[in-house]
Amino acid sequence: MIGLDWGSTSLRAMRLGPGGEVLELRQSAAGASTLHGRAEEFVAALDALIPDWHAGSAPLLACGMVGSQHGWREVPYADCPADEAALLRLAVDVDWRGRTVRLLPGLRCNGAAGAPDLMRGEETQVLGALQLEPALAPQACLVLPGTHSKWVQVQDGRVGGFATQMTGELFAVLRQHSVLGRLMTADTAAASAEAFEQGVAAARDHGEAGLPNQLFGVRSLGLAGRLALADGADYLSGLLIGHELRAGLAWRAARGLRGAALRLIGEPALCERYARALALFGEPDAQALSNTAPAGLWRLAQPGGLR
Amino acid sequence: MIGLDWGSTSLRAMRLGPGGEVLELRQSAAGASTLHGRAEEFVAALDALIPDWHAGSAPLLACGMVGSQHGWREVPYADCPADEAALLRLAVDVDWRGRTVRLLPGLRCNGAAGAPDLMRGEETQVLGALQLEPALAPQACLVLPGTHSKWVQVQDGRVGGFATQMTGELFAVLRQHSVLGRLMTADTAAASAEAFEQGVAAARDHGEAGLPNQLFGVRSLGLAGRLALADGADYLSGLLIGHELRAGLAWRAARGLRGAALRLIGEPALCERYARALALFGEPDAQALSNTAPAGLWRLAQPGGLR
Repeated sequence: MIGLDWGSTSLRAMRLGPGGEVLELRQSAAGASTLHGRAEEFVAALDALIPDWHAGSAPLLACGMVGSQHGWREVPYADCPADEAALLRLAVDVDWRGRTVRLLPGLRCNGAAGAPDLMRGEETQVLGALQLEPALAPQACLVLPGTHSKWVQVQDGRVGGFATQMTGELFAVLRQHSVLGRLMTADTAAASAEAFEQGVAAARDHGEAGLPNQLFGVRSLGLAGRLALADGADYLSGLLIGHELRAGLAWRAARGLRGAALRLIGEPALCERYARALALFGEPDAQALSNTAPAGLWRLAQPGGLR
Repeated sequence: MIGLDWGSTSLRAMRLGPGGEVLELRQSAAGASTLHGRAEEFVAALDALIPDWHAGSAPLLACGMVGSQHGWREVPYADCPADEAALLRLAVDVDWRGRTVRLLPGLRCNGAAGAPDLMRGEETQVLGALQLEPALAPQACLVLPGTHSKWVQVQDGRVGGFATQMTGELFAVLRQHSVLGRLMTADTAAASAEAFEQGVAAARDHGEAGLPNQLFGVRSLGLAGRLALADGADYLSGLLIGHELRAGLAWRAARGLRGAALRLIGEPALCERYARALALFGEPDAQALSNTAPAGLWRLAQPGGLR
């Protein structure tokens, strides 16, 4: 089968073997947000990336922002709790040169203050984690760090609910556009583990002062000469991830998941940062899983008969 | 006397009468951040704005970022608790065409997580408030909303301590540079009181979910069609101010100021927003004071004999 992990900023196409193994992977920058919501541009993106994968008749299965309001075609959200069947029921088919591309829905649940919470693409990574580690299915807390981090409750093989934290986006806009960024050097190569852990500890021990208060500390520590220019970004990263962990671990407790397995899913380097921060919060056992989307697409192809 | 309220982005010069009244006010965009830390540019800014105020021998008194690291000359911070005398002791004199300009220091205190907290200019506004309303001097909680809001403890006629909240800057960078801003119309004329209060209430009732989580609600409510494009900015403003009030009111309680007078100092329209938000937090009596810098400069001129 052919799987498409089609996010906002990138398209990853993969040919999966009979056991779900990745036979071939190709990637392009033709993310959904770059294609202006025009079907012909999505078609052209596939033409450009996988022209030689065109032969064959099985549908391609696609997850991510490709199914958003400004994607190839809008696919509604499935409501939590949701399993594979719930996702497949809402999938929408589009046409690529006579072949079917099946667009998967995202997931929706009730968030704080009556706001809905939403994901598109991460549900497939979550199902991939369950495929790779079946012991997680009865109950688990999965953390997917990123631009919009997701904290996910797995319960009885379904996604029970989740909570988004805009940590990565806050880091990017504060780093690039706020007064804090002016106190940081462009050189991020020499990451400071110490400054990062100092930021995490500040959030852990004094987070009740509020994030908007502690953010000012990045500036005042710099002005006071107590935080080197080269370390400002790491301190800020630690502060933001620390605030995510405060809220996320409280969320986990409120969902009754304190004793459940905790897993990180995402880029190894980012998961490593989160693992270090979690250890400072007294959670040293969070293992990381990476690149779970292929296994998720393979699992979703099973009940739908796409393989 | 001549007072200078010289911030990052603007310079306001005022001639004050014998009772502290403003006889004349002139303003320019020659803020300290635009003058490259060069003394000659600060001199030229005064040349351009008040050439005809040059006659006379009394020193001019200046507060704000003019005394920062990248100002006319760096003036150290006075440590809290601090009164007028403490400020004047650290003031630094510079020369403007043979006349003395006395640069006031800022204030420093211990903030959360061992980070220092800092202000430059607001201390003069605080002293102005005490000048205009002497009953505040024994004990008060003063809130100065803005890019970097300040919550200030007044105790026994001195500034006992304070806490900064980067609310205004967070609003600006999120509005202009994040995914949230893309869901907002440029038209901010038609402010929605309802969306603002909805944001305040979300922070008040569910703030423990964390600001980075609730920020995502601005997006998800918009995607779900439950927040109009024109209302997104007001909801975001309410959410951020609500989180400031959560942390600020907890700070006030921790400083033992729960029963003390609460005053807002700043632009009337912004103070009005804060007053509405405070009312939703059960604090309906926060009166506002505006333009207190002249009274503060006048008060500071008294012990130093500048008048």
